[in-house]
Amino acid sequence: MHIGLIGLGKMGNNMRARLESKGIEVTGYDTNPDVSDVATVADLVAALPTPRVVWMMVPAGAVTDAVVNDLEPHLEKGDLVVDGGNSRFTEDFKHSAQLAPKGVDFMDVGVSGGVWGLQNGYGLMVGGSAAQVERVMPVFDALRPDGPRDEGFVHVGEVGAGHYAKMVHNGIEYALMEAYAEGYELLDTRKDIIKDVTGTFKAWQRGTVVRSWLLELLVRALEQDPEFEHIEGYVQDSGEGRWTVEEALENAVPVPTISASIFARFVSRQKDSPAMKAVAALRNQFGGHAVKAVD
Amino acid sequence: MHIGLIGLGKMGNNMRARLESKGIEVTGYDTNPDVSDVATVADLVAALPTPRVVWMMVPAGAVTDAVVNDLEPHLEKGDLVVDGGNSRFTEDFKHSAQLAPKGVDFMDVGVSGGVWGLQNGYGLMVGGSAAQVERVMPVFDALRPDGPRDEGFVHVGEVGAGHYAKMVHNGIEYALMEAYAEGYELLDTRKDIIKDVTGTFKAWQRGTVVRSWLLELLVRALEQDPEFEHIEGYVQDSGEGRWTVEEALENAVPVPTISASIFARFVSRQKDSPAMKAVAALRNQFGGHAVKAVD
Amino acid sequence: MHIGLIGLGKMGNNMRARLESKGIEVTGYDTNPDVSDVATVADLVAALPTPRVVWMMVPAGAVTDAVVNDLEPHLEKGDLVVDGGNSRFTEDFKHSAQLAPKGVDFMDVGVSGGVWGLQNGYGLMVGGSAAQVERVMPVFDALRPDGPRDEGFVHVGEVGAGHYAKMVHNGIEYALMEAYAEGYELLDTRKDIIKDVTGTFKAWQRGTVVRSWLLELLVRALEQDPEFEHIEGYVQDSGEGRWTVEEALENAVPVPTISASIFARFVSRQKDSPAMKAVAALRNQFGGHAVKAVD
Amino acid sequence: MHIGLIGLGKMGNNMRARLESKGIEVTGYDTNPDVSDVATVADLVAALPTPRVVWMMVPAGAVTDAVVNDLEPHLEKGDLVVDGGNSRFTEDFKHSAQLAPKGVDFMDVGVSGGVWGLQNGYGLMVGGSAAQVERVMPVFDALRPDGPRDEGFVHVGEVGAGHYAKMVHNGIEYALMEAYAEGYELLDTRKDIIKDVTGTFKAWQRGTVVRSWLLELLVRALEQDPEFEHIEGYVQDSGEGRWTVEEALENAVPVPTISASIFARFVSRQKDSPAMKAVAALRNQFGGHAVKAVD
Repeated sequence: MHIGLIGLGKMGNNMRARLESKGIEVTGYDTNPDVSDVATVADLVAALPTPRVVWMMVPAGAVTDAVVNDLEPHLEKGDLVVDGGNSRFTEDFKHSAQLAPKGVDFMDVGVSGGVWGLQNGYGLMVGGSAAQVERVMPVFDALRPDGPRDEGFVHVGEVGAGHYAKMVHNGIEYALMEAYAEGYELLDTRKDIIKDVTGTFKAWQRGTVVRSWLLELLVRALEQDPEFEHIEGYVQDSGEGRWTVEEALENAVPVPTISASIFARFVSRQKDSPAMKAVAALRNQFGGHAVKAVD
Repeated sequence: MHIGLIGLGKMGNNMRARLESKGIEVTGYDTNPDVSDVATVADLVAALPTPRVVWMMVPAGAVTDAVVNDLEPHLEKGDLVVDGGNSRFTEDFKHSAQLAPKGVDFMDVGVSGGVWGLQNGYGLMVGGSAAQVERVMPVFDALRPDGPRDEGFVHVGEVGAGHYAKMVHNGIEYALMEAYAEGYELLDTRKDIIKDVTGTFKAWQRGTVVRSWLLELLVRALEQDPEFEHIEGYVQDSGEGRWTVEEALENAVPVPTISASIFARFVSRQKDSPAMKAVAALRNQFGGHAVKAVD
Repeated sequence: MHIGLIGLGKMGNNMRARLESKGIEVTGYDTNPDVSDVATVADLVAALPTPRVVWMMVPAGAVTDAVVNDLEPHLEKGDLVVDGGNSRFTEDFKHSAQLAPKGVDFMDVGVSGGVWGLQNGYGLMVGGSAAQVERVMPVFDALRPDGPRDEGFVHVGEVGAGHYAKMVHNGIEYALMEAYAEGYELLDTRKDIIKDVTGTFKAWQRGTVVRSWLLELLVRALEQDPEFEHIEGYVQDSGEGRWTVEEALENAVPVPTISASIFARFVSRQKDSPAMKAVAALRNQFGGHAVKAVD
Repeated sequence: MHIGLIGLGKMGNNMRARLESKGIEVTGYDTNPDVSDVATVADLVAALPTPRVVWMMVPAGAVTDAVVNDLEPHLEKGDLVVDGGNSRFTEDFKHSAQLAPKGVDFMDVGVSGGVWGLQNGYGLMVGGSAAQVERVMPVFDALRPDGPRDEGFVHVGEVGAGHYAKMVHNGIEYALMEAYAEGYELLDTRKDIIKDVTGTFKAWQRGTVVRSWLLELLVRALEQDPEFEHIEGYVQDSGEGRWTVEEALENAVPVPTISASIFARFVSRQKDSPAMKAVAALRNQFGGHAVKAVD
């Protein structure tokens, strides 16, 4: 099988390597000419056997929109565009509708696994028709982890379903990370009792109820930098967590831990908190409690 | 009526002024000789008519314990000790039991109102027997706000009940402050839309569902320092909020907003968050996401 | 002054009464002919002096859209439409843009006060141009509470700002209500200690830090139905709370208490919780803990 | 090696089986004579070689206290009592101090793994002196999972440290379960999009960031009862989660997800929520919103 891959950044490049190692031929395009196989999107399309499969691995939002716009005039009936990036599921409806009049198919794939996917394989959540899924299956089989197909791949539903599942996956991921982090802070705060914080997490890797891949990564991080001396408690978020909470609000689903994990990230990025200024001011007003003056 | 008052700090001094303005005679004792009427606790007791009423207005915990210990040998059957400080309700059981063998009575009073109590009167929540409440009523009537007695005073229950009610009052207070503060931060963040943040809070003072005394104080604070330029978002907590959550845990009562308001204060006092370091480290491990290095 | 008022439900009808009591002439239109002064929107417009002021007081969303659509063909350059309902602020941009080509002005007004507004006046948050605000001021002065104008009225900013402020107002309101409710549940759970739950809330009305209008309403409700025997813990939400959280997510503002208060409402409406089924199933899986079987 | 084991319930019996399969001789005592090897605690002690090791696997609190009291008179200098139950870490200080005057040693071991421990081994967190740990190591090696010792066993610190680590482990566990459960509810609510909820969780087992043992158990549960038709969303909690939050409060550590997961369990056990009754009553008071009447 021979596919086109647009976006050869950290993720795209690793995925290409895994695909090629499994016998899938990949022609890659990237705006960075140093890593691109072809000069233009048109060249990419021209290089692919018909009907074509073009996999996009680019940032969600404006970039994905632009790539779909670039691709559209060059594609033909029967071609298939796969969005493997982190698009919001509602974007899939838009892109699918944009390509449909030309007879170009569209699929969305939520891809999990990060930088470890090259080695371990990627967890894949796919939205699209059964026929399309069948058609791309060799690619999915190459990307997914070794082992039973249904433990690393799922056909979730129609277009949009793959990114929906990935969005929820990431919402869960945010809360899982926060859960371990809260436990870490408590153990770290009581080093008068806990003489071996790293060792405690390390020991949780087998037999315990909390064992997981994230736990293994936390052990790895602690072994590299015990007490996290070289890292600041400043955490970005990439959208999926917020979308998960928005979907929960839309559907009246309570998500207290997922929302808490996102709010914790928001706070982590604030130099000073306007809300806490207001609370400090209030305490001062009613109780005469001293406030910390800004220097 | 003539009572003893131990503790002439900010609160105690204001309360003394209000009591005297309402015709209650007060002999005050404080460890600071500049403000104390008498040299020792023994002198205070000696100065009071029997049966005595001694009102303690000192910090909860070790100081309150010490004052009870100091008082005990000097008091006689029929005397009454009132703890008007912010003791945990479980402490009241202890102090009551300590004094009971000598026939000395004990009451607990939760006092709300802060620095405004001198002028507005204090909200009073009282724990003790009906007979004791009756006996101290002239003092309560002097301290509480003008208006109907039952809108500023309540006999909550037996010993401990006054502080229990005050504890819950403060738990609610924490969450109310956080609620306004979250709204403030949102308005402040969208000054592209909200051209008059202070004016918006000011306008909420009449007619709206959110009008309250805390709102009035927030307006006052904003008028003194619009945008809180001179105040840091660093907020202490004084125990009652935590105790409220502990009681909630003990009794399986969900308190998501009260606990959230306390956690927000904890975070406000952290230079850097160990938990967020852990989350940043995890993101770096699985996604290769950049971390902010500590300088 | 003479204005048109569309929507004569509970809110609209009360507002009309207050306006008329303050000397504002009102021609009202409602789809219910029993309460409507005119038969059609066209008749309403025809009955008003030019340039016209038409105040909409109808449900947000589809109904507001429909009313704007109905009004548009009948209005003329210089007329002014005021949306006093609970529209999302982004809808104001749409309606303003829809009417602008005809030279019809648009304002949004967040109105707080509920069923008490007729008697107490309504808190008003206004978005629009200074000239428009000036023009409608007699109406605002009639609707707002007696007292200083800036304690019940604010010109928040351009179109959309009024509803933005109202949205945040409601977000805060949700969290305030939840805060009192958590305190209520704790006191109610410990009736072994708290012998007078209603009396405790009643006593908080003067002098305390937590005094507010919502507290007064809670006392009123408890006096009508102590222990809430006749009311189910089932709580609707009307959109503004969710929008507040969505705006907070959009702007990276942490809102833990506002979100918690909304999630509590979601849970209150569930017969059984899918999430808690999953947790119960998990406990059973790893610990062999018994589950409650569905009958 | 030959040890005594008190408590032959679900956990104790499984642990005994694993110990014996690894060559540790076990004399067991239980209040249920059908499963007990000996008639009394005294008989148990008499049956063990000196210096003795007695492992308690009984419910935390009163039962553990009673067993320590029962054991104490029969033990001699050099004997060692191990508490492998879920005692609060502060209890360990008490039991250690109780046994110390007789020269009897005490260790605490947090044991994780549930009903799967027999097969997979148990994660062990140990508090005590290095010499004691060394002495009991054959037992730890038999109980812990196969593989490197430090991936299933940790000597956390002095007496109490083992249970402290186990308490935090369980706090994390609560939040992890809630995180998956929130994601489950969202997927389950959108079955219009997610055509294969079980398949989605199943696919997350390899390659994804959220893969874990709890995820595997969730898949197992869903495969047994898709949509959890036979299980009620009613969830107990066994103490450690609450203690974790209490410790967090004591040490000013923010734990928003751990506390949220416990509050969700509290709510799951309520027939009707007093707090939500209060909110419903408030909405009715200010807005005239209809309430659901109790039948």
